[in-house]
Parts: sequence; structure tokens; C-alpha cells
Amino acid sequence: MTPTPTVGIVGAGQLARMMIEAATPLDIPIRLLAASPNDAAARISPNVDIGSPKSSEDLIAFGKHCDIVTFDHELVDLKSIRELEQTGQHVYPSANALLHAQDKLHQRTVFTSAGFPIPDFLPVKSTEEIIAFAETHGWPVVVKAQRDGYDGRGVWIIENRSDADSLIANATTNNVSLLVEQFIPIDRELAGLIARRPSGEFELYPIVETVQRNGICHEVIAPAAIPESISKRAIDLTIAVAEQADVVGNMALELFLVGDELLINEIATRPHNSGHFSIEGCHTSQFENHLRAILDWPLGSASLRSGAVVMANLLGRGENRLEDGVPAALKATSPGIHPHLYGKTSRLGRKIGHVTATGDDLEETRTRATVAAETLMTATANTIGAPS
Amino acid sequence: MTPTPTVGIVGAGQLARMMIEAATPLDIPIRLLAASPNDAAARISPNVDIGSPKSSEDLIAFGKHCDIVTFDHELVDLKSIRELEQTGQHVYPSANALLHAQDKLHQRTVFTSAGFPIPDFLPVKSTEEIIAFAETHGWPVVVKAQRDGYDGRGVWIIENRSDADSLIANATTNNVSLLVEQFIPIDRELAGLIARRPSGEFELYPIVETVQRNGICHEVIAPAAIPESISKRAIDLTIAVAEQADVVGNMALELFLVGDELLINEIATRPHNSGHFSIEGCHTSQFENHLRAILDWPLGSASLRSGAVVMANLLGRGENRLEDGVPAALKATSPGIHPHLYGKTSRLGRKIGHVTATGDDLEETRTRATVAAETLMTATANTIGAPS
Repeated sequence: MTPTPTVGIVGAGQLARMMIEAATPLDIPIRLLAASPNDAAARISPNVDIGSPKSSEDLIAFGKHCDIVTFDHELVDLKSIRELEQTGQHVYPSANALLHAQDKLHQRTVFTSAGFPIPDFLPVKSTEEIIAFAETHGWPVVVKAQRDGYDGRGVWIIENRSDADSLIANATTNNVSLLVEQFIPIDRELAGLIARRPSGEFELYPIVETVQRNGICHEVIAPAAIPESISKRAIDLTIAVAEQADVVGNMALELFLVGDELLINEIATRPHNSGHFSIEGCHTSQFENHLRAILDWPLGSASLRSGAVVMANLLGRGENRLEDGVPAALKATSPGIHPHLYGKTSRLGRKIGHVTATGDDLEETRTRATVAAETLMTATANTIGAPS
Repeated sequence: MTPTPTVGIVGAGQLARMMIEAATPLDIPIRLLAASPNDAAARISPNVDIGSPKSSEDLIAFGKHCDIVTFDHELVDLKSIRELEQTGQHVYPSANALLHAQDKLHQRTVFTSAGFPIPDFLPVKSTEEIIAFAETHGWPVVVKAQRDGYDGRGVWIIENRSDADSLIANATTNNVSLLVEQFIPIDRELAGLIARRPSGEFELYPIVETVQRNGICHEVIAPAAIPESISKRAIDLTIAVAEQADVVGNMALELFLVGDELLINEIATRPHNSGHFSIEGCHTSQFENHLRAILDWPLGSASLRSGAVVMANLLGRGENRLEDGVPAALKATSPGIHPHLYGKTSRLGRKIGHVTATGDDLEETRTRATVAAETLMTATANTIGAPS
């Protein structure tokens, strides 16, 4: 008989914050490795180590305070994570699984070997290589940083030689490794979400549609309004990729739908923005199932609690405080509206919260989510700098 | 433009803990006045003042760290609360409203004046007064401590003169003031739950049935399976009592159903055990609506999210740790089962957590809640002291 193991989370952003929200009812002890005491999750936790996720020393010291280590993000030093594993620490996802999420070239190479459908790609170092790829696959092409990209950062649409020239110059200066991909004329973007135990036992969330603008997720619609046959293939692919990467915990698979064809875009080996709807939308949230999976506890049902669930992200519009818009948003949109504010300083385009609407009818639910998100962001913007 | 006010909670038990769970998504800053850093809520909060809820000095010092003060329990010194109010502090519920919950004689006197239905009662100081009351109303009678009773403590069923003699002797020794009440042959116990803003605007939860054993709540069934006419009267009574006490925040009204007649048992001017089902069971939980009410924010819908919701309390069976039973309980009872562990040391009969089951069919849902609660408590008991 032992008490519940302490789960250490590397990083203290909104994902760690929502893991804490899921951990409290189950009395799972959580410890954070935060860069700053003002990080979103650090602000609500009494158990915070301050340190860098890229420092082997900090990670190993942190590991000594925890029984299991998991992640808020994958911007970590894998060599240090491997050192942590070598001390006998339980690390979920493992360094090998994390590598899939962290390194887009590795991910694509492995997925190609496994026969998973992905856009054609090639690692590139020069303008000439980009142009040769474009001449085979057609313009434009998509160039991506091999590492550290998120929310549209590290992704560029390249239309011509001049674009390619300046990108290569910039990448060389900043020591960024690149790969080039086919430009895919996407019909829809979908995501598959799965929680997986060390034994391979898993629980699947319904396939969702993600609505992206400029590479940033704006809305998630659950369930995706797609034919059963496509949903089935998306599910099969999600299971296969999770097995291939041997993920323990939550995994999100971002998919492109082009006509009837599904292509893998990215993988994240942790709770993911496309799964935030599950907090109110499903019997068990992705955050709770992530914790249950890494603790090797039985997983909870990932089925929907209502006919339609729509999540809308709250994106910063400057130095605003979302909190000021909460009463207006609650008034405008009740019932079945759930704001989630991350306690983060607002910056233009930064994800500082989300709103989830639950309902029966998809369009009506989507409207409520949109109105709530817009009210929150506008009410706030209007109070900023307004004469008092 | 001001940031969200800091809510100070006097007391750091499970109610404060569940208020924190509701506050985090809305980024409402919470501060606790805890007796010990090991209190249920203090263990998960970075913002804890240690002090006594009965010390005027501690309360006033605590008030300086908060914009609004609310309560985890009503075992506070009202004189100190009035002093806090006189400093200009927003205190919800007010000292006047708290007095209703704290002092059973005051409560009954006020309710009688207001014409609310309650059992006949009389303050008593001697055996002769108890016997005189019993000779008018019939044996047995119920004697209650005027203050500080909870979970069946401070309530005695008195069958005869000898019972009365020893109770009076005990009360005199311990300086406990008593009142005597009719013994009511209860058919069912119900509860009405309401959240109320300073303006009087309110949101009502469905009337629930509470299943009590030895004065301790074991189960809450939502909605109560009662005729519409009784539900309507229970609702009207809940609204009327909340108005009379001018409650701001959450209020629970415990009711006896005797034949077709409703009688008030007790009032609590805060979130209450009979409303825990609302966390997963309703669009907005009692904890969230309590916070929204005291912040004077628009309230959220209190309507049910599924046809049936059943909460079962987890009562300590000794020095056990509920955490050890979690995996077994989750396995036995998924889907739609939500354990809530309070992080409290187990003592015989102590409320150390609860489980909520959601479903469509009442009996099936109730079975799942019961099995989950039993599995949690038994699995734990079995591991305690077992050979390893």
C-alpha cells in the first residue's frame, strides 16, 4: 500500500494548469517545474520548483521530488530527459515518444517507414533544393522548422525563388534546420485524441474538426461532421500512430482531410488544444485521462456528454485582462458556457483562455461559443484605456 | 477597470477546496484562512493565511488580504464577523445571514415569525421542561444543541425522563444551550438549493432527495422523485427563506416531507453537501454559482445535464487512505463516475470524499454510485494492515 504517486509536470503553462484542475478531485499530488512563479499553473500551485526544462541538472533535481514525470510542452532537452530516464525515473511520454513530437523530420521519417499517409517532404538546406522540390510537387510549397514550431510559428508558405532565398538566409543566420513539404489543398482539419496506458490499453475521443486561421487553432467542433467511413479511418490511424510511437498518456494526431484522403499533419504526445472541449464535453477529460494513463489507472469514458460541443480559443488582443470581460460573457451566453482563463499576460495572438459551449444542435452551440469568445475579448478590449 | 476581486474563504475544508476547483477556470483569486497547512483546501493552495476563524484579530488581518470574505463553515465568531463588516469589508453571507445558520433557536424564532412551516420547538434548560413538552407533543422528542452541531452531532432522540436527566446533566456540565422539538415521522428528506446575488436575482437547483443515516447524509438523488406539486412548494419555500435571510451566495434548505406536508429542518448559508452532485450534474456547480453570486456576476444555469445524478458520500472507516481504492473504483464503475477525494485524514464516520454518478435511469445511476463508493471504501480498508 502506497499513497498516490506524485506527478511532476515539466512546464507550467495552461496544460499543466488544467492537469492540476483534473488532479485535485482525485487527490493526485502534482509538482511543477516552472520557469517563473508567474507561469499560468505556478500561480495556482503550492508545489513549484523553479528551473529550466532544458537544464539536465534542474530536471534531475526536479525528478527527485516526483514519482512520475510528464510534460506541459515538448520544448525540452531530450538528452536531459534520457539522463532522467537513466536514473530510473518513470517518464511519460518517454524520450523516444517525445522525439516524435519534437522533431518533425524524425516524425516524418518514421511515419513514412511505417506506411502512414503524410504529405511528401524533404529536409532542405538551400534555395535550390526548395526549388527542385517545388518543380516536382508544384508551387507553393510549405517550409517548416524541424523543431520548436508551434501555433503557426516555424511554418512558411513559399511562393517563389525570392521567398525561398530570404527564408534560407534567415534560417542560416538563426541556425534553424528546415524541411519542405507539399502544399496540401486542405478541405478540413481533423484531430484524433487518444489516452493510452503502459499496457497499450487505450480510450479514444470522438474525432473533432479543428478550425485554423494563420496556423492557430480558433475552434474545435466535436464531433466532426464527417462521414462514418472517414471517422473510422481517422480513428484507426490515431490508434496505429499511438502504438507506433508507444505513447503513454495522451496523444493528439492532427489530420488533413483532402477529398476523401487523410494525411497526418502533426503529432503531440500530451494533452492538446484540440482536446480542451473534453473538460465539459466528455465523461472524462483529456487531462484526467492523461493522468490516469501515466499512473496506469483504468481510463475513463471519452464519450460525449451532449450532442454537440464547441470550443473557441481566446486570443490576446494586446495588454488586456480577460477577467474584466467575464461577467459580460457569462451574461451574454448562459446556459452551457464555460470560460477557462489561463491567468496569462495577454499578448497579440497569444492563447490566453478558451470557452466551451455544450448543446444539442451544432450550429446553435457554435454560435454560443463564438459569441462568448467574442464578448470576452471585446468587453475586455473596450475597458482597456477607456476613460474611467 | 479592476482585476477580479480576491475572494477570502474562512476555513479550508472540502467546501473551500471545491470552491478553489471552481475558481481556477474563471481565474478568480482565492485566499484561505486555514487552521492548519494540512487542511483539505490549504494543501492545494499557494495563498494560505494560518489563523483561527474565532479570532477577531486573525479575521481582520485576513480581511486585509481579500476584497470579499466568504465561508467554508459557520463555526465562526459572529462578533468578529460584525467587526470585519464594520471595517467596510464585503462579507457574504453577512453576519445576519450567518446567524440563521449558526443559531438554531434564532433560526426557528425567525422562521416562526415569518410563518414558515417548522416543527414545534421550545428552548429548554431542565428535565421538567422537556417532559412538559413531550407530554404535549408526545414521546419521543428531539433535543438539539442551539449551536455548533453538524453531521448528527448535537442532536439527541429522548425517549423518557431518564434520557432527559442525563442529557441535561451533560449539557449543564458542558455549558451547552438546548432546544426541544417534536419528533417528526419523516417520509423523506429533501433539500432546496439556491444561489442569490446581492440584488436578489437567483438561480434554483432542482429539488433533491437526501438519504440520511444516523444524522449523516449518505446519498443525494437529483432530481427527487416527488410529485410536481411538492417540488413547487419546496422551491417556493427555498426562495422565501433565502429572501427572508437575505442570503448572498449559496443557500441550502433541508426539508422534511411528512405525507404531503413540508417542514423546514435546517438552513446552511453556503455551498452544502446536498449540492455536491451539481459539479458534474448541472451546467453550473453550486461552488461556481456561489462565487459568481458573491462577486455579483450573472449566475449560471442550475439545470441538470443528465436525467439522473446520484452523489454518495465517502465516510471514513478508520485510518484508511481513500487514494488506494481509486483505481479499483474507477475500474468497477466507469463510465460516468466521478470520485472527489478531499485529501483529509480518515476517521470513523468522517466525510472524506464523495462520488457522483450521472446517467439516464435513476436506479441504474444510484447503483453505480453505491458500488463506486463501496468499492472505494472497501478496497482501501482491505489494503490497510494487509500483509505486503
